[in-house]
Amino acid sequence: MKTIHTHIALLAVAIAGLAHIQAQDPLPAWNDGPAKKAITAFVGKVTKEGSSDFVPPAGRIATFDNDGTLWAEQPMYFQMLFALHRVGVLAPQHPEWKDKEPFASLLKGDVKAALAGGEKAMLEIVMATHAGMTTAEFEQVVREWIATAEHPKFKKPLIECVYQPMVELLAYLRANGFKTFIVSGGGIEFMRPWTEKVYGIPPEQVIGSSIKTTYEMRDGKPVLVRLPEIDFIDDKTGKPAGINSHIGRRPIAAFGNSDGDQQMLEWTQAGGGARLMMLVHHDDAEREFAYGAESKIGTFSDALMAEAKKSSWEVISMKNDWKTIFAFEVSH
Amino acid sequence: MKTIHTHIALLAVAIAGLAHIQAQDPLPAWNDGPAKKAITAFVGKVTKEGSSDFVPPAGRIATFDNDGTLWAEQPMYFQMLFALHRVGVLAPQHPEWKDKEPFASLLKGDVKAALAGGEKAMLEIVMATHAGMTTAEFEQVVREWIATAEHPKFKKPLIECVYQPMVELLAYLRANGFKTFIVSGGGIEFMRPWTEKVYGIPPEQVIGSSIKTTYEMRDGKPVLVRLPEIDFIDDKTGKPAGINSHIGRRPIAAFGNSDGDQQMLEWTQAGGGARLMMLVHHDDAEREFAYGAESKIGTFSDALMAEAKKSSWEVISMKNDWKTIFAFEVSH
Repeated sequence: MKTIHTHIALLAVAIAGLAHIQAQDPLPAWNDGPAKKAITAFVGKVTKEGSSDFVPPAGRIATFDNDGTLWAEQPMYFQMLFALHRVGVLAPQHPEWKDKEPFASLLKGDVKAALAGGEKAMLEIVMATHAGMTTAEFEQVVREWIATAEHPKFKKPLIECVYQPMVELLAYLRANGFKTFIVSGGGIEFMRPWTEKVYGIPPEQVIGSSIKTTYEMRDGKPVLVRLPEIDFIDDKTGKPAGINSHIGRRPIAAFGNSDGDQQMLEWTQAGGGARLMMLVHHDDAEREFAYGAESKIGTFSDALMAEAKKSSWEVISMKNDWKTIFAFEVSH
Repeated sequence: MKTIHTHIALLAVAIAGLAHIQAQDPLPAWNDGPAKKAITAFVGKVTKEGSSDFVPPAGRIATFDNDGTLWAEQPMYFQMLFALHRVGVLAPQHPEWKDKEPFASLLKGDVKAALAGGEKAMLEIVMATHAGMTTAEFEQVVREWIATAEHPKFKKPLIECVYQPMVELLAYLRANGFKTFIVSGGGIEFMRPWTEKVYGIPPEQVIGSSIKTTYEMRDGKPVLVRLPEIDFIDDKTGKPAGINSHIGRRPIAAFGNSDGDQQMLEWTQAGGGARLMMLVHHDDAEREFAYGAESKIGTFSDALMAEAKKSSWEVISMKNDWKTIFAFEVSH
């Protein structure tokens, strides 16, 4: 009977938690406004039994872009900060990098010159720092780095540079029976070591770009070795493909912030029934960053803005819709 | 307060369900023997708080092969039955098939001659029947076919040719906080339309082989079109790679029945802590089929049997360990 008692105790906690949720605003970091209203109205109708918009819990799938949607992405993608760090760590094993671009510029601290080589340079940096080790070794390297890595502007740990309103939104959706997924152009194995702790999203609900792996025996133990070969790019048209491959059903809510998310929102909207599509707009230079059509990172083009208007996608103004951006703002 | 009341009602049902499980054997289709004992002992120790073998629910990942492990695979993989059916349906649109192998033989009903072309012939049949339509169209075709498809020997719907002991095992593991996944060499989109209904496994917990898709707009609506190009083969060394890609953490229990599952079991066992690896052995010609090392479908080689002994993987004898194989045996 011990099992039953344990369950009853857990259920009591769950009920207490629910009462707590009922009693207070589940989205305190959001200002009262159209974005917050769109969220609560949507959740209200898809969870209301008997409503024509009701969706059973199994169908409550919500997908979130990561960079620029759940955490910051300026002055550069955090995964690029990781790659640059790794170039420094690995340089002693690569004396040839001193004379070889993009590494030579990086080692002189000139990121701009290094990235002048465009996608080819980026790919070389990624492969040199993300491949050639086992999946377990890579996970360990990410874990160690993320534990101390700081944001260059905010001087806070990167894992604190997550948007408090979005963290609340994730929890609010889960409390309403949703399964929350990340669908990011970032590396799937770069995210998985920390998404559960930071967002409450377990590894099996993280979708991202990947490189190929190969299975082999080392000292009688099986390992998966990361190969310097692209497997999948989870961006733009890749996002619906990644959702199809990993989830196998269509989301009813999708959240992004840039041109790379347009197809995910289109794909979400094309399903029947109630849908919620939202785009975070970075318009707060004071508290975070202000960028959009002109930015190479997190481009929010005029075409995307036009599409959002045409398709009734909700644009979240960080400046107006978010009372708090980062939890550290209010913690001192 | 309605939400709370609804939850309390649901919880009461859950408690009643638990009491019911406590009161009766959760694995009635299993004979008392070493296989059943291995399962209950393993579940007992990983769920016992304070035990050195305790695994928190988030880590309770169990992976199952499908063909020959959860449902039958003789006289041929059921997905091949589907492909053969589709060749018949599509033949009028392909007059050239009359003179082109492997289709010509198939249309004459000579499956053996058609498959004499080996892997190349198989691949041609798969691509001709699985590609060239949208994911939604393919899902619909699978749903319609599986609703009526019958087993050639048992004369029962294919979705009833699932192993009752394994269906009970899936439910038993989930009742003990496990997440159950399918990791099959079969097509991921061939399985997803029916796994939730048949096994209680939702689409996002199904991993399988896949072909590539491309995102495009048709009549202003986005679709994913299935391309005649292999994306991923989820068999042998592909199984750990598929697990890594889709789950992102290592299972603590894995179930298979053939050489294609060896690497999944190795990968599972190589993690630290308590582990359960089991192989279904088809040794019951009377109630199902008896096959092993000599079979091309579901090969259980002598080398695999030796590996199982060496690595303490539990071999399930269908003849001795299973009281019931199919639910339809006992329903009349």
